[in-house]
Amino acid sequence: MRAVIPYKKTKAKSRLSSVLTLKEREEFVESMLKDVVNTLSDAQIKNIDVLTTTSNSIPDNLDVKVITSEHGLNEAINSYLKNIQEPVLIIMADLPLVKSNHITDIINTKKDVVIVPGKGGGTNILYLKKPEKFTVKYYGSSFLTHCNIAKKNLNAVEIYDSFLASTDIDEPHDLVEILLHGQGLSRKYIEKKFEIDDSRGRLKLKC
Amino acid sequence: MRAVIPYKKTKAKSRLSSVLTLKEREEFVESMLKDVVNTLSDAQIKNIDVLTTTSNSIPDNLDVKVITSEHGLNEAINSYLKNIQEPVLIIMADLPLVKSNHITDIINTKKDVVIVPGKGGGTNILYLKKPEKFTVKYYGSSFLTHCNIAKKNLNAVEIYDSFLASTDIDEPHDLVEILLHGQGLSRKYIEKKFEIDDSRGRLKLKC
Repeated sequence: MRAVIPYKKTKAKSRLSSVLTLKEREEFVESMLKDVVNTLSDAQIKNIDVLTTTSNSIPDNLDVKVITSEHGLNEAINSYLKNIQEPVLIIMADLPLVKSNHITDIINTKKDVVIVPGKGGGTNILYLKKPEKFTVKYYGSSFLTHCNIAKKNLNAVEIYDSFLASTDIDEPHDLVEILLHGQGLSRKYIEKKFEIDDSRGRLKLKC
Repeated sequence: MRAVIPYKKTKAKSRLSSVLTLKEREEFVESMLKDVVNTLSDAQIKNIDVLTTTSNSIPDNLDVKVITSEHGLNEAINSYLKNIQEPVLIIMADLPLVKSNHITDIINTKKDVVIVPGKGGGTNILYLKKPEKFTVKYYGSSFLTHCNIAKKNLNAVEIYDSFLASTDIDEPHDLVEILLHGQGLSRKYIEKKFEIDDSRGRLKLKC
């Protein structure tokens, strides 16, 4: 089996721009990517692909294969899937709370497809035992869309229930979850800049 | 063992006031309470207490014991715990996505304490094998507070990882999760008024 991480660094995570500068956001998404790669490695996944565009630099010291595509997310992933004849785990790069035990649970499923929903109807992780039969459609209510695609394909689906794996980092309030539940490089990065206002459970900038 | 549900109906859930009227919010919190009670019953929990103030009416047809206290949340729960000599599950009333298998998992823990975090550092469910030794402190970063209280008490703690159990319903965007992942009366109530804008994965009012 293999894993693929769609990755965008350039001008990434604009919804965090109220609390992080462009440079900081680009450093932070790189930290999250490294955390996701480390988690996959800890789960003994040997073949990790990063799917990105030529404008995004990938850190040299990551043990991944870089695949570039100038297409949008869905077209890029669907082209990728057409060439894969083994089970594949599609995992987003903004999931620094995912742990190796989640990955192990997911890839040991008895079902054909595993979907980890994101907040608000997104898809954080999609595990496909037979990727050549599946067409992804991210954005919007992709969780429901992927459930429906699996149903049409007569795939048995597991919805994987994990707060940590369902927490994708998009908004400033999501950074609180990293300080509360995170580990690794993303936590180190956010800890340098923020702390939790203990009286209200909210994030505040360090003075 | 027993379960206790702190409950407020009167003027509840003010953060939903942009999408639900006062009357609707009070009807909706009652639906959520019924869902939580049904989930506990499905998990074979026989003794369910609802902890509330005299100003809050509880539906007649619920098989629960109503305990009233005019104190604030923490004082009311801590007074309650002092009189309990058996394991107790403290579960919030705004968790319509919790299922009976979550409850069964939690009460079958090998640890002394189980904490289910809420979004933003809250505590959604707290299971205490020896409640007489524990003092709760909700509000603010109660998840961290309860972890620290357990540590001081030398309690072994399990952090229970579930997206469904960690999703407390406070804000309009939380209602999307009910439409996506919910069952029961809360879903029926929200379905009457809202639907998902499939193109953007957001909630929209039904015309």
